[in-house]
Amino acid sequence: MRISHPTTDRGDSRVVVVGGGLAGRVTAWRAAQRGLDVTVVEPSDARSASRVAAGMLTPASEAAFGEEPLMEFAVHSAGLYKGFVAELEAASGTDVGHHTTGTLMVAFDRDDLAVLTDLHELQQRLGVPTERLTSRACRKLEPMLAPSVRGGVLAPEDHSVDPRRLLQALAVAGERAGVREVADRAVEVTDGLSVRLAGGGTLEADQVVLAAGCWGNDIALPEPVLPTLRPVKGQLLRTRMPEGSEPLVHRTVRGLVKGSPVYLVPRGDGEIVVGATQEELGHDDSLTVGGLWKILRDARELVPGVTELEVTEACVGLRPGSPDNEPLLGPTRVPGLHLAAGHFRHGVLLTPATGEAMAQALTEGTLPAPARRFSADREDNT
Amino acid sequence: MRISHPTTDRGDSRVVVVGGGLAGRVTAWRAAQRGLDVTVVEPSDARSASRVAAGMLTPASEAAFGEEPLMEFAVHSAGLYKGFVAELEAASGTDVGHHTTGTLMVAFDRDDLAVLTDLHELQQRLGVPTERLTSRACRKLEPMLAPSVRGGVLAPEDHSVDPRRLLQALAVAGERAGVREVADRAVEVTDGLSVRLAGGGTLEADQVVLAAGCWGNDIALPEPVLPTLRPVKGQLLRTRMPEGSEPLVHRTVRGLVKGSPVYLVPRGDGEIVVGATQEELGHDDSLTVGGLWKILRDARELVPGVTELEVTEACVGLRPGSPDNEPLLGPTRVPGLHLAAGHFRHGVLLTPATGEAMAQALTEGTLPAPARRFSADREDNT
Repeated sequence: MRISHPTTDRGDSRVVVVGGGLAGRVTAWRAAQRGLDVTVVEPSDARSASRVAAGMLTPASEAAFGEEPLMEFAVHSAGLYKGFVAELEAASGTDVGHHTTGTLMVAFDRDDLAVLTDLHELQQRLGVPTERLTSRACRKLEPMLAPSVRGGVLAPEDHSVDPRRLLQALAVAGERAGVREVADRAVEVTDGLSVRLAGGGTLEADQVVLAAGCWGNDIALPEPVLPTLRPVKGQLLRTRMPEGSEPLVHRTVRGLVKGSPVYLVPRGDGEIVVGATQEELGHDDSLTVGGLWKILRDARELVPGVTELEVTEACVGLRPGSPDNEPLLGPTRVPGLHLAAGHFRHGVLLTPATGEAMAQALTEGTLPAPARRFSADREDNT
Repeated sequence: MRISHPTTDRGDSRVVVVGGGLAGRVTAWRAAQRGLDVTVVEPSDARSASRVAAGMLTPASEAAFGEEPLMEFAVHSAGLYKGFVAELEAASGTDVGHHTTGTLMVAFDRDDLAVLTDLHELQQRLGVPTERLTSRACRKLEPMLAPSVRGGVLAPEDHSVDPRRLLQALAVAGERAGVREVADRAVEVTDGLSVRLAGGGTLEADQVVLAAGCWGNDIALPEPVLPTLRPVKGQLLRTRMPEGSEPLVHRTVRGLVKGSPVYLVPRGDGEIVVGATQEELGHDDSLTVGGLWKILRDARELVPGVTELEVTEACVGLRPGSPDNEPLLGPTRVPGLHLAAGHFRHGVLLTPATGEAMAQALTEGTLPAPARRFSADREDNT
């Protein structure tokens, strides 16, 4: 069903979104809801980081020193999630696997525990509800944890979602709201906002949103408004409980194992995502012996019973890191050309806030208050 | 090209081979060369252990106490390999990846070294040419070995082959010699040597060869002439050197790491097979976190540089183990029904000798001297 909408009166109704990952698809859906005429351009062999992400919605456990403003934005987006999921599931008829049992962070040695203690103080300063737990209390929550756990922090409001289902739901909701789809690779956005495609065609637009992850830098632009994004490689494993067995963990469990982070994200359907490496190696997206070994070593330290899990898939994704690790949202100095880029490790968590910000950017030309700091046009963005 | 052959005068010219792994295909090729009218039955989704095997031709390093007769047969088959490969490559026009740089076995701790010393004595008793090496001499041969290697044994005549190429070459050579192919699953062999297929058809035969690996026990037989085979699960990784890098190892390297065996088998095309687990779990063929972890842990101990390898495939196969771990070859007490089964860990190495034995069994009804001990009709075979 193609729905007709009244266009706005500013001649900016034709929007082309370059990129069909979470940032692109939430932008497309929200823009179509506002009455814009939206086309998403995504090659059929796209390798979006959204398809590889584990889907942790964990502003508390992701909190990091020096990243407080980003964490505030993350907390804002986390606050939108419940309503966002309800609206999206209704609009798409798709269950997105929203898992709301919280996140347990645990530490293994004295140094890991010191890091976790500092993190807990930061969480309290940011007003994120978390609770310090003894090792005994950790094991009471998650009996399969290794006995050597020294202590932990429970973040009851750090949830998770299945990013592949989320992506699928956004595609369906977008289509139902009138979003068109072009299966091709964008190679250039011209001065006049034509989007040239690898297949030879051209899409004329009033506004263009660049949301192509690490591949954004391969697209020619009239001015260099997109800084060079660092591909930060992540390797992870999708696994499954053997049939008929008890759940291995009941909530997302994140461990710091002798300084090395690892997580287990359980889904309602028995899947457990185990990850992930963080490697800055350029556009290399090979699965490596070293990457798998690191994940397996640390996951086994965290929950020895992972050895019983069946491996269903090994994945590699490239997270798009901006120069300051903060996302790039909204208008650039090229009139009509927007960014929804550089979400790095936070793309899934920031999806509702990205949709909110981009919808306002495309209809009013401005960013809402929580997103303003992350303006694509900010000074130090080079 | 269908070649016509004179048939034998015993009314046994129509041979159906059930199973398209190495045992089945070498039997089919050799039988067709002797003028028999051969059909191979193999389902298109077959998961033959031959496709997963690493392809080590290593009678010396596989030698084990209590298995001396099997090792003599293995040494006999290894002696046939060079001529077998030359004939098969000529007949099929297919390079089978025969790698003749020898095998280095290394030990890590004092116990591993004691095992290796005993093994070396056994090899000498069996007349297998091997050479005891200091840890320094091992590292001279393979500079990427871990410094903690305690010592080793070089088996210059323990080679390797690429089992997938070997299988492909046998299929082509067989086809060129007139072997027919039926893509279906055999469900029953009747008294009168009809082979009933899952798809509903029936193949009439004068002789039937059961060569279906662990799946042989799923086939109904007129008498229980096939003992229950144990599926012995093996998990392994296919990896690849990053482009432009030096070879990580120059020959097959086998390590005993604190009692746990691991190997690296390099191929001419840059592939390195890293394996393998040995698990007796019935027909379970899932890839597990524990299996991968064990392989990676031990491979890293053996050659720390494996971490740089790209993983191209993770495989699981089921080795068919007979009750006494020895193969089952030739005629059974059901007239015309033969076995080529139970090759366990040695299917690739025993391929030439299996072909030799089965060709004689199908044309003369007897086994050649080296194979006689492994008669499918032996007394204690239950």
